[in-house]
Parts: sequence; structure tokens; C-alpha cells
Amino acid sequence: MRLKIVFNMLGTLLIFIGVSMLVPIFVALYYKEVDGVAFIVTMGFTISIGRILSRATESNEEIRHREGFAVVTLGWIAISIFGAIPFMLAGVFDNFVDAFFESVSGFTTTGATVIMSLESLSHTILFWRSWMHWLGGMGIIVMSIAILPELAGSMQLFKAEAPGPVHDRLKPRIRETAKTLWVVYLVITSVQTILLVMNDMPFFDAIIHSFGTISSGGFSSRTLSVKAYNSTVIEWIMAVFMFLAGVNLTLHYQFLTGNIRSIFKDKELKFYTCIVVSAIVLITINLRFQVYRSLAESLNYAAFQVTSIISTAGFATVDYDIWPPFSRGILLILMFIGGCAGSTAGGIKVIRIYALMKKGFQELYKLIHPRAVTSLKIGNRAVSEEVSTSILGFFFLYVIVFVISTVILTSFGIDLISSISAVAATLGNIGPGLGLIGPLNTYVPLPIVCKLLLSFCMILGRLEIYTVLVFLLSGFWRK
Amino acid sequence: MRLKIVFNMLGTLLIFIGVSMLVPIFVALYYKEVDGVAFIVTMGFTISIGRILSRATESNEEIRHREGFAVVTLGWIAISIFGAIPFMLAGVFDNFVDAFFESVSGFTTTGATVIMSLESLSHTILFWRSWMHWLGGMGIIVMSIAILPELAGSMQLFKAEAPGPVHDRLKPRIRETAKTLWVVYLVITSVQTILLVMNDMPFFDAIIHSFGTISSGGFSSRTLSVKAYNSTVIEWIMAVFMFLAGVNLTLHYQFLTGNIRSIFKDKELKFYTCIVVSAIVLITINLRFQVYRSLAESLNYAAFQVTSIISTAGFATVDYDIWPPFSRGILLILMFIGGCAGSTAGGIKVIRIYALMKKGFQELYKLIHPRAVTSLKIGNRAVSEEVSTSILGFFFLYVIVFVISTVILTSFGIDLISSISAVAATLGNIGPGLGLIGPLNTYVPLPIVCKLLLSFCMILGRLEIYTVLVFLLSGFWRK
Ligand SMILES: [K+]
Ligand SMILES: [K+]
Repeated sequence: MRLKIVFNMLGTLLIFIGVSMLVPIFVALYYKEVDGVAFIVTMGFTISIGRILSRATESNEEIRHREGFAVVTLGWIAISIFGAIPFMLAGVFDNFVDAFFESVSGFTTTGATVIMSLESLSHTILFWRSWMHWLGGMGIIVMSIAILPELAGSMQLFKAEAPGPVHDRLKPRIRETAKTLWVVYLVITSVQTILLVMNDMPFFDAIIHSFGTISSGGFSSRTLSVKAYNSTVIEWIMAVFMFLAGVNLTLHYQFLTGNIRSIFKDKELKFYTCIVVSAIVLITINLRFQVYRSLAESLNYAAFQVTSIISTAGFATVDYDIWPPFSRGILLILMFIGGCAGSTAGGIKVIRIYALMKKGFQELYKLIHPRAVTSLKIGNRAVSEEVSTSILGFFFLYVIVFVISTVILTSFGIDLISSISAVAATLGNIGPGLGLIGPLNTYVPLPIVCKLLLSFCMILGRLEIYTVLVFLLSGFWRK
Repeated sequence: MRLKIVFNMLGTLLIFIGVSMLVPIFVALYYKEVDGVAFIVTMGFTISIGRILSRATESNEEIRHREGFAVVTLGWIAISIFGAIPFMLAGVFDNFVDAFFESVSGFTTTGATVIMSLESLSHTILFWRSWMHWLGGMGIIVMSIAILPELAGSMQLFKAEAPGPVHDRLKPRIRETAKTLWVVYLVITSVQTILLVMNDMPFFDAIIHSFGTISSGGFSSRTLSVKAYNSTVIEWIMAVFMFLAGVNLTLHYQFLTGNIRSIFKDKELKFYTCIVVSAIVLITINLRFQVYRSLAESLNYAAFQVTSIISTAGFATVDYDIWPPFSRGILLILMFIGGCAGSTAGGIKVIRIYALMKKGFQELYKLIHPRAVTSLKIGNRAVSEEVSTSILGFFFLYVIVFVISTVILTSFGIDLISSISAVAATLGNIGPGLGLIGPLNTYVPLPIVCKLLLSFCMILGRLEIYTVLVFLLSGFWRK
């Protein structure tokens, strides 16, 4: 591995994150809050380190596979470390692990928190948490649509599907794609903010919740999350935008450019919609008969919570942990499925589940008709044997990481359901889980080691697992 | 599908099961119990139906794929239905679903019971439950070593590995293999019975527990299971034989014929031993520090329970449901792994887990070295791309069936951990689970529909899932 190239790109990334801290500084100025100082200091520090790194390692060489994996993995870790500094300087936490956990949770758009009362925080800090979500969400889109397909080949189902002109070399292509998607991302955020403000959410809160929705992050400015506003209209606006946040951003681009037909032809969107509708119907029925007296109330809660969990946003309007096992079970399954590829959502992703199901039926078909020639198709596109094997491999890796992490959590005496859902909620970048870490609780009571493990799970999940594993293993497999 | 051939083979199977009822009749004669009458009546009925079926459908045609799947699936269902009749005639149950559940549980060697107090049963009925285990276990061995590889091709990792002369046509080959394995099976059962009797277990109980061990069934003659004998020596004999029951029976054959070298070269056995030893060590440590005061006591319980769960026998010496989450979590994982291929054990099987892990690492390796030519090897044998895709497909099917069944159980208000473990315990043919169906409990409190669903899970698990699914789907996919 040519460390020079890796450090050069990490340096550039740090400069970018440092500069982005200007925004919370403006927020601090507007609200006249001292926490702005923490950001001025961190900004100076981050940019300096970034410049030193990138200056010392200037080169014109092209990046190669192995370095790509290293940059992506180390990049998320680096920005999370520097993003944690303002929390420490502003005195939000008394130990760095908590600050790091909150920062990783922000940038990976997980939204798991170790802060008990959000109302005690300054606007600046609240904004920083959501700003990390928003930047992280954009980073994920660019990464999953432009970078990972180049790096990972068959591990990614979608290759060269990004809108905008296609270049041969990696860098210019990423830049073009990023620009286009940035605009789409901005448009959706703005529309949601306007709608929320129109329905009596304060402007600051509307920004926070719009950032948390499109990025599928889920950090709120209120301890009670969206329930604090006690407005059915706000809850439905959130639900619709959470649903949209789970959709491939290139489809939003096509919608905005008037290409409606391609949206209706998208198999993943169809399947995603099917899952969402089925889950809402099932949970509504279950809630209506076993928990609430009114059908409307049951539907409201079900629609909000289903879109919140499958889009992996993780906002809450109710303590769904007291719902019957059936509803909790379905939510737990949605945690694993996640949103569509090319969205900010985490989880295994709808397209992979869809491909796996088709593949499963195909294998059965082959048993009855051993001489039949079959090929896996999604929509009009044929999925090569290599890609489908990779998806199956991904699924297996996901399960293995999930099982091992859960066992480690239980070794700290955390009960089975809390352990299972904590790993599902961090690996899937959802945020809240069940039991000990239910929607009304935080990750505060967990031991330090568990917080580090779950931080690692957030990064693993965000980087589709294999990116991190390849980076970790590439040392062993040097040629 | 040529139903004639299917019914012909089902008829033969029923005659065989009918004749096998002579053995419980002898038991009834020896103990002078009236329950023998139930078996005389059922035997006459079963043999008559069997003869009518096979006489009416005589033919010399060769069996084909599709009929093979039908015979295997319908065969297990048919013998379970006829096996349930004596329970009804003897008045053990007051509804047929319970009797069917107990019978399926017997023949699939699951060992899940809906009987509260075993001490209230006659010797004849107790013997019949274990006799179903023993016959079922032998059926599983023959099926998994001789029949399924022929039917399923790449879904099965081991093909033509059975000892004895190899024939081209299916029938004579199955007969030869069955004969050889029958002897091995009988030898192991006898050795265990002798050892148990030598250590003061009553002869009848020794037979029951030996039948339940080699078949990995787990039905006991005592409500307290093996704990009733309060003997550490007996517990260790059981543990060792449960471990052995999880090993490929062809390896036992090789051991008995003096071919020791091939045993040490077997990768699956190595990996199986590794898992067992690791699990025992981890649980012993966990128990020593959190539950029991003595290391020996912790080790005894850990060794017994680990071998019991991974071999999917499901005997118990302790209520492991009160153990800490870590130990319970590990047992839950072992439920999914199961024993080696070619044994009576259920679960996903060690060889599949091993192949999946190798495949997972290979996929990661390919990401770093995209141009490297890799091939999956287990021991000296190369595993074709087709086989490895099939294993991945099997894993995915297993997870899907598991998830859907669990959701259905939760819809009856059964808590998550009980639902999860009930499905794991029946799909993996283990028997006891956690929570509501823990080792000290029975499946009695579950609603009728859940009992039927779990009966279906036992058959699905026993027939490696795809056999049943192919049978169910073959109607849709007629050419
Ligand atoms: K989230
Ligand atoms: K069993």
C-alpha cells in the first residue's frame, strides 16, 4: 500500500471537515453561544493537521484498489475523531469514548445517542450533531453511488448507474456525480424544512429534523423526538420524507428532471414500497386490536415507525418497545432490511433482499428442472453469477458480524433482546433498538467497551462491512 | 408427476412402519400393559393401508427427481400420521394435533414434547416415542447419505461418499448403504446401552436414552431428563455419545474398519470439535464466574449442554434458561449450527458453516486481488461454484423460513425470545428452546395453530428445507 496517497486524501478530507465547521460557528454567532469557541479551536486544529498531511504527501499518482479501501475506512474514523473534539471542548461529555460514539453516530447517520437530555445542550452543539448527519449522508450517497462500485466491483449491484456524464478516471467522475446529487439532496432538505415550518415547527427544529430525515440520521433537538411537537401533520410529513429518504437518490434526480417513467419501472422501489405498505398494514391491525382503541391512531403510529425503521432514520413518536411481540418482531426484521441502494439508509438493502429471494427460488427451480438454463434478472438487467454470489456472501458476512457482536455484548450481561437489537440498530445505522436501548432510552448505561464495539459496528454497517474487512485483512494478504 | 410410483413407495414405507410396531407390542407383552392393544390395532390398520397402496400401484418404472421429492416429503408426513394413532388409542392425548406433534417430533428426532409428566406413561408408550427416534434417525442417515445427494445434486455437499459398493441405479445403492450403516448405528447404540447399564441406569431407561442419543432425538423416560439419575458419570457418557452422534456416520464406519487416518484428515470433524471445545470453554468460564461456585460443576453442565445442543439431541441436566445471556446466546447460536452432515443431527450443519466462512474470506480476498484466480477447497476436494452458491442459497432459505415462522409465532402473542428459540429448536430438530419452551417446560401451552406450524418446521428442517419447498412448488412449475 502506498501510504502517501492514503494520507494525502485523508488530509484533504480533514480540511473539508474543518472548513465545514464554519457553519456551526455561524450558528453560535447567531445565538450568541460560547460553544462557538470550541468549534473555532477545533476548526483551526483540524485544518492545520489536514494541511500538514496533504502538503507532506503531494503526488499525482492514481489511487488503486487497496488504497481506496484504506481511504474510505480511515476517512470515516478520522472525521469521527476530529468531530468528537468540539463535544469535549464544550464539556458535553467527560470521556472521549462517549464523544467519539456520538460523533461516529453522527457521521454514519446512525443517530444512536449517549446524551440523556437534549434540552440541556446549546443550539450550536445540537446543530453540529445534525450537521454531521447531513454531511455524512451526502458522503454516503457519493460513496455508494460513485466510489464503492469502482472499488468493489461485484460486491455492489449497481455500477455506473450514477446520473451525469461518465468519465473513465475515478476522480472527475466522483466530482460530477457529487455535484448533481448534492443539488438533489439540497432540494429535498429545503422542501421538507419549508413544509415543517409551514406546520408550526420552529425554524431551527425544522432544519434539525430535515437534516436528520434526508440523511436517515435521526438525531432530534428534543429528548421526546418528534413526539415533542404533538402534531399529526408533522408526523406524516416526517413519515413521507423518511420513506423518500430510503429511496435511491438517482430516482429523485430522475423525478426532478421529469423522467417519471423510469421511476415506475424500478423493481427495487416497487419491492421497497410493498414491504413498507405490508408492514404498516400488519402493525396497524396488530396495534388496533391489542394496544390502541382507534384505527387512525394505530395507523399513525404504524406508518411513522415503519418508515422510520426501514429508512433507518430512527425517529420515534412512541415507545414501540411496549408494543406486542408481533409488531416488535416486524420492526426488528425491518432493521435488517433497510432502505434502497443509493440512499442514505443502512441495513442489508432492499435490492439485495430482492436478489436473494429471486436467487433462492431459482435454486429450487433448478432442483426440479436440473437441465433448465436459468439466469437471474432484475428488471431488464441480467445479474451475473459473480454478482449474485457476492450478494449471498455479503448476506452471510452481515449475519456473522451480527452474531459475533451480539455474543460479545451478552458477555457483558446485557440481555439477549437488547444485545440483538443494539447490534441490529448500529450495524444497520438505525439508532434506537429494543429493551435497554429502546426509543425512550439511550446508549448511556452500556459499558465503555460495548460503546467502542457498537461504534465499530456503525462504521462497519455504513461501509457495507466488506470495505472495512478488506482494509483490516489486506495486511495479511500482501502479495 | 407419476403418482403411481409415489404411492407405491409410500405403501412400502407404511408396511415397514406397521411391521416395526411389533417391537412395542413385545414391550407391552413383557410389561403386561394394555397399551399393546393400541399397537396391535394400529399395526393391522397401517399394514393394510400400506398393502392396498402398494398393490394398487405396482410398477417397474424408475423413480425420477420430482417423484423423489414427493416420496421423501409425503413419506415423513405419512409415517407421522400413522405413528400418532397409538397415542390416540392409548388415550395419551385428547386431540389429534398433539398426537401428531409428538409423532412428528419422534420421527424427525426433534424431541419436542407436549406431554407434561412422562412418569404417567406406560413403558409401551415411552418405548414407542424412542423407537420412533431410532427408526427416524436411521431414516435420516440413509436419506442424507444415499437419497438426497442423488435427488438434489449441488444442494448436497457430499455425493457418492457413502461406504460400500457403488451401484449406478438408485435402489440397490440405497439398500447396500443402508445395510452397512444400520450395523454401525446398531453397534454405537449397543455400546452406549451397555455403558449406561454398567453405571446403574435401569436397562429400560438405558435403551431409551441410547435410542435418543444416537438419533439425536432427546426423548427421555423421565420428566427431569438425564438429571433424574443424578450421576456425573452417566452425564459424561451421554455427553460423549451426543458428541459422537453429531459426527458423520461414515466416519464411525471408517473408525470401526480401522481406517483411523481418514478421521484425522476430516475437516468437518476438526471444525466441529473446535466449535464444541470453544463453546464448552466459554460457557464454563461464564458459569464459573456468574452462576456456580465450582469449576467442575460449571464444566459438567457446560459440556453436557453444549454437546446436547450442537448434536441437536436436546437432553437437559439443568434449566439453562436461567444462565446469563452470554451462555444462552452461545447455545442459541449452536442451535443454528447443528452437527456434521451425514449424522442424525439437524441444524444448518457444520460443513455448510465451514464452506460459507471460507467463501466469505475468499470474496474479501478477491476484492483486494481482483485478478487472482481462486477456488474453494475443503480438504483436498475442490468445491464447485455451483455447490458453493447452493450452500449460500440454503443458508438464505434457512434464514427466511426462520424469520417468517418466528413472525407468525409472535402474532399469537408469544414473546420474542420464546418465538425465536421455538423456531430454532424445531427447524434445527433440537427440541427444547429458551423462555416459554425452555428445558423444564413443554410445548403444551402453545395454541393449536402454532403446534401445527412447528410440526411443519420440524419436517422442513429434517428434510433440509429445499426438499419440502421443491415438493410444494413443483405444482406451480410444471413444464
Ligand atoms: K439512523
Ligand atoms: K433433538
